[in-house]
Parts: sequence; structure tokens; C-alpha cells
Amino acid sequence: MSEQPHDEDCIFCRIVDEEIPARTIHEGPETLAILDANPLAPGHTLVIPRGHYETIQGVPDGARAAVFDALGRLVGPIERATGADGSTVGFNNGAAAGQEVPHVHGHIIPRFDDDGGGPIHDVIASPVSLTETELDDIAARIVDAVDA
Amino acid sequence: MSEQPHDEDCIFCRIVDEEIPARTIHEGPETLAILDANPLAPGHTLVIPRGHYETIQGVPDGARAAVFDALGRLVGPIERATGADGSTVGFNNGAAAGQEVPHVHGHIIPRFDDDGGGPIHDVIASPVSLTETELDDIAARIVDAVDA
Repeated sequence: MSEQPHDEDCIFCRIVDEEIPARTIHEGPETLAILDANPLAPGHTLVIPRGHYETIQGVPDGARAAVFDALGRLVGPIERATGADGSTVGFNNGAAAGQEVPHVHGHIIPRFDDDGGGPIHDVIASPVSLTETELDDIAARIVDAVDA
Repeated sequence: MSEQPHDEDCIFCRIVDEEIPARTIHEGPETLAILDANPLAPGHTLVIPRGHYETIQGVPDGARAAVFDALGRLVGPIERATGADGSTVGFNNGAAAGQEVPHVHGHIIPRFDDDGGGPIHDVIASPVSLTETELDDIAARIVDAVDA
């Protein structure tokens, strides 16, 4: 995997290189899943690509698919192992979304009926109000971008 | 796809059946991506399995992988099309995580430098404090559950 981009100052790259210890949950050829060292809940897990990519869209197709696949596969076992009632699963993609370490990492945060938390909708302070025409226009632009 | 589970009272099943209109972003054999009708931001998109499954761990492996793969693939085009600076990508998995419609749906919420929002960490009111021993124990239990 030495062809993969690497940043010697990145904490996740250093964990991939085993320079910094971490509690490993699962390993794949292109992915690593570890317990978050600063957990929001028991079992808070991070899934990362082994290569250093800042954002989801910067990860090559195969590695991106592997990260998302691992994230989806681990939700059930993590909820079972922690006795969780649910989980928040996702990414802060980019600094504008609150991403702090610039190496893609998906979160699985076990949730409990009495944890006092909310949905990922809470990330947004104020929702937008859009007209039907604006929504039509946005949809068309996204479809064009998907097909490009 | 008639073998897939279906709930005639579910809004997403009715969208899959084209009984309720939606703005389609992308279609796959097992997935559908649509604009959220109550967007948190311009381009707020939902990716759903065509079958009615309440939680991620209830979705069969193939369909779950397809949903997660579509979610990952759409992030880049949606950010480009909306001029977003980032995105919040993820699932409220289960009522304890704030899931409202009991049909799995992944969100891509475009984020902007000035949107006043935060990271998905904001879903949790108060983080936990765990000892090293507790973390070791949790990791071991999750590894067992992953291997089961």
C-alpha cells in the first residue's frame, strides 16, 4: 500500500503506520476501523481509508466504496456489542461541515434512548426555504453533475 | 423488485412506487436518490433502498452496500452542483438517533462556510468519559460481534 498518499503529520496516517496505538475494530486492504480516542459514546468508532485523502470526493472509487461498505457493515455489530438503541452514522466532509482531521473518517456513534441527543439535522442552525422552481433547478443541476 | 418488503403507509415506499412525486437525483436497481422535500440546505439529498427496511442492519448485504456506495458517489457531484464548501453525510439509525421515517435513508446535506452549523458531534448533548480498561473491553466486545 506504499503507493497510497501519506501525510507524516496526520494522526490517522500515523495510526495506519502503527506509530500511534489505537484499538482496532476491523481491518481491510484499504480501510481501518478503530475506536475513537475521544468517544462521544461507548463504542464510538471511526472508519478511515488507509491512504491520506482529505474529503470523500478525493478518495479513489475503490477505496471510497470500501470505506462506505465497512461503515455500513459495522453498524449492526457495534450496536449489538454496546447494547445501543440506535446510532448516528456519518461524516463531517470538509471544514465547512466541522471536519477537524483532514483525513476522511466516518463515524459510528452508538445512541441510547436516554442520551439526550438529537438527529444529524441538529448540525444546521437554520434550514433553508426554497421555492418549487428553485428545487427543480437544483435537482437538474445535480443530475447534470452526477452524469458528468 | 416485487420481492422486496414494502409498507403501503411509508412515504418512501410510496415515492419508490411513484405514488408520491419526488425529484429524482439518481436511480439504481436497489436504490433511489431524491431531493429532501424539507431541505436543511439547497441540494439536501436522501439515498434510500427500494425495499422497506427500518434500520441499516436490517437491510440485506447487497442492498446495504448499494445504498452506502450511492451515498459515497453522490457527495462530490452534489457539492459541485450546489457550490457547497462541504457536506454532512449520514444516517439517523433508529428512533434513539432521531430517525423519524422508519425506512433507511442516508442524508447528504450541503454545507457552506457561513451556514452557522456544526459537526455531527453536535448530536450528542454530553460526551462520555471512559477509562482505558473500559475502552479495551468495549473494543474486545465489538471485535467479537464483528466476527460473529
